[in-house]
Amino acid sequence: MLDPWGAYIEQLDIPPLASGPLDGLRFAAKDLFDVAGHPTRAGNPVFAERWGIPSRHAWAVEALLRAGARLVAKTHTHELAYGMTGINPHFGTPRNPRVPEGIPGGSSSGSAVAVAAGLVPLALGSDTGGSVRIPASFCGILGFRPTHGLIPLDGVVPLAPSFDTVGLLARDPELLDRAARVLLPPLNTPPLKGLLLVREGLEVSTPEAQQAVLDLLPFFERLGCRIEEVHLDLEAIREVQRILQGTQAWGIHEDWINRVHPPLGEDVAHLLKLAQALSSGEIGRAMIEALKLRKELQPPSTCIYLLPATPSSAPPLVRLRSSEEALAFRQQTLSLTCVASMGGLPAVAAPSLQEPPVGIQLVGPRGSDLSLLELVQRYMSHLQHS
Amino acid sequence: MLDPWGAYIEQLDIPPLASGPLDGLRFAAKDLFDVAGHPTRAGNPVFAERWGIPSRHAWAVEALLRAGARLVAKTHTHELAYGMTGINPHFGTPRNPRVPEGIPGGSSSGSAVAVAAGLVPLALGSDTGGSVRIPASFCGILGFRPTHGLIPLDGVVPLAPSFDTVGLLARDPELLDRAARVLLPPLNTPPLKGLLLVREGLEVSTPEAQQAVLDLLPFFERLGCRIEEVHLDLEAIREVQRILQGTQAWGIHEDWINRVHPPLGEDVAHLLKLAQALSSGEIGRAMIEALKLRKELQPPSTCIYLLPATPSSAPPLVRLRSSEEALAFRQQTLSLTCVASMGGLPAVAAPSLQEPPVGIQLVGPRGSDLSLLELVQRYMSHLQHS
Repeated sequence: MLDPWGAYIEQLDIPPLASGPLDGLRFAAKDLFDVAGHPTRAGNPVFAERWGIPSRHAWAVEALLRAGARLVAKTHTHELAYGMTGINPHFGTPRNPRVPEGIPGGSSSGSAVAVAAGLVPLALGSDTGGSVRIPASFCGILGFRPTHGLIPLDGVVPLAPSFDTVGLLARDPELLDRAARVLLPPLNTPPLKGLLLVREGLEVSTPEAQQAVLDLLPFFERLGCRIEEVHLDLEAIREVQRILQGTQAWGIHEDWINRVHPPLGEDVAHLLKLAQALSSGEIGRAMIEALKLRKELQPPSTCIYLLPATPSSAPPLVRLRSSEEALAFRQQTLSLTCVASMGGLPAVAAPSLQEPPVGIQLVGPRGSDLSLLELVQRYMSHLQHS
Repeated sequence: MLDPWGAYIEQLDIPPLASGPLDGLRFAAKDLFDVAGHPTRAGNPVFAERWGIPSRHAWAVEALLRAGARLVAKTHTHELAYGMTGINPHFGTPRNPRVPEGIPGGSSSGSAVAVAAGLVPLALGSDTGGSVRIPASFCGILGFRPTHGLIPLDGVVPLAPSFDTVGLLARDPELLDRAARVLLPPLNTPPLKGLLLVREGLEVSTPEAQQAVLDLLPFFERLGCRIEEVHLDLEAIREVQRILQGTQAWGIHEDWINRVHPPLGEDVAHLLKLAQALSSGEIGRAMIEALKLRKELQPPSTCIYLLPATPSSAPPLVRLRSSEEALAFRQQTLSLTCVASMGGLPAVAAPSLQEPPVGIQLVGPRGSDLSLLELVQRYMSHLQHS
C-alpha cells in the first residue's frame, strides 16, 4: 500500500483472529504495541534489542483482532513516546495531511496521520500526557483517551504507568465508539448534562483555538446542558504532571540508557536529563499534590470539562527546531492535556470548524467513557450539518 | 490525673460537643492531632512554632467530641511520627506498662501506653507504616488502621499522605468498633470467610510471634474459615514502602528543616538524610511498583491476611540505642506492617496469649473495616475464654 505521508514504520498483514463487531475493518498500531514476531521499536533505533521480539500481541492488538479487525501496519511514534511534536530524528517525521508545513503532533504521530490521510479508519495510540489527543487535534480527527486503568496495557512499552493509557484514533465517531466498546469493560452511561468551561484553557490558547471551543456552546445549549465557567490552576497541575511523568520515565529507562548509551534525540535526552535531576523533595511534594488533584479534578458525575485539545493548530515543523520554542510549545500544550492525565479521566479530542484544524477537548468523570463517546457522536453529526 | 507511665505530654479537659454513642467516654489524642488553642508538637521541641496554634480541632478529634466523648490529654509521639520505637530524645519515652525494660513502640507511643495502663479506654493515633499497630502489639492492646482514605486527615500533621491514616487504640473490642463507626463512613460488612496465612510473615518473626499466630488457627477453623497459606515478597514490598514514605516525608519537611534547622533526634535525622539522597530513578521505579502492589495486595473480598503484628514482643530500650540494631528492628517490623500500608488495606493488631505481649495482625480487603472489627470482637471473646 502507498504511504505518501510516512505514517508507517512497517507494513503488516495480520488477519483477524475471529469474527466480531469489527469485521472487515483495517487498523494500524503505534510501534509501542507488541505484535508477535515483529520488533517493537518505540521510535528508537536500538530499543527493539532491549525489548526482544515479542512472542505475543499486546492485549489491545489481540482484542481488536479477535473482534474481526485486520492489522495492516505499525506506525511511527515520537521517540519512547516521550514528546508531543512527532518529530523523530531516527526514523523520520510523518507529514500532517492537513497542514503542509505543520508537525503531525505526538507521540502517536503515525497513527494520527494514517487515519487523517485515510490509510486506515482506526489506529491504536497511547496517551500518557496527551499523546493521542494532541496529534488528533493537529490532524483534524478524533482521539480517545480512556479512564486510566480500564484498558489493559500488557504488551505496550510504558512511559509513566501512573498516567499511561491505550488510546484510539478515528475519523468516524460511530466506529470510535464501536472499537472502544471492544476494549473497555462494561460501563454505565449516565447522560452528561453539565458543561464546565475551563477559563484558563482559553487563556493559554490562540484566538482560533478559543473560537473552536466557543463555537461549540450553542450545540451544548440546544442539548439542554447547563454551561458553567470553572477555574483550574493548569500551570500547577502541569508542573505536577511534568515531575511525576519524568520521574517514572527515568525510572523505566535509566538502567538501559546507562548500560547501552543508545542514540537519543536531543529533545528526549534533554527531558530525561531534567527527570534525572529531580530531587526527592520535589518529587515527594508532587506525589502529595497528585493525591489531592486526583480527587479534586474528578468532575460531578454528570458534568464534563470543555477546553481546547491544543493551544493552536499544528505549528510549523521548522519553528520547533529551536529548543526554547519547543519548550514553550510543550508547556502550553501540556497545560491543556494534563487535566485528564492527572485526574485519570477519560477525554476525547474532536475536530472543530477551524481551518487549519485545531481540536476541542471533552473530559468526563472516571468511568464515563461511553457517555462521552455518545456525546461525541451527536457533536460530530451537528458539526457535519454546520 | 496521675500519669506514672509518661504517656501524656499535656493534660486537657475538653468536654463533649454533643451527646452521642460515646457519651461518658474519656479519650486521649496523639500530639499529631490538632486541638484548638493548644500547640501541636509532633514530638519535636520547635515544630509547634512552624505549625502555629490551631484554631480548630482535627476532624477526628471533633468527631469524637461530637459523639459524646471527653478529651483528657495529648499523648507523646515518636518525633514527626517517623519512627517505630517511641523513643523520644526531646520529651522522654513513655514506659511500656507490660514490659518493664521494653520500648512502648511507636510512633503512637503515648496513646498505646495510656490505653494499656488504663488511663483512658480509647486513644487516637495515626498509622502510616505501622504506627498504631506496632505500639498496640508491644503494649498488649488493640490497634486499628482503617482503609486508606476513609477517615479525613484534616488537622493531623502529615508524614506520607499516600499511606497516612487516622487510627484508634483500645482494650475493649466493642468500644473500638463503636468509636470506629463514629469516624468511618457507612460500609458494607460482608462476612470474612477465608484466612490467608502469610508464610513470610512467620519467617521474619521470633518463635513467640509465630506461636501467637498459630494459636489462632483453631479459632478460625471453628468459625468455619478456610485457611490457606500464601506467599508475599515482604522484603520487596517493604523496600517500596521505605522509598515512597521517605520521599513524601522529606517532601513535607525539607523546607522547614533547611530554614529552621530544628533539633532532631539522631534516628529521624538519619531517615530524612536517607530520604533526601533517594534518586529520581529509584523513586520512579518504586512508584510503578506501588501501582502494581496496590492492585495485587488487595485480597479476595471475603479473605483476610493473617500475620504477626510485630516480629517479637517489645525489645529492650537499651538494645535499640545502637543504630545497627535499630535499623534491623525497623526493617523486620516494617516487613509485617507494610502489607496493609502499601495496599491501603484496613488492619487490626490484637493481643495474643503470649507473654510478654506480641500481637497478631488481621488485614482485610479495602472497605472491610467493620467486618474486620466484628471478627476481632469474636476473637477477643474467644481469647478471654482460653
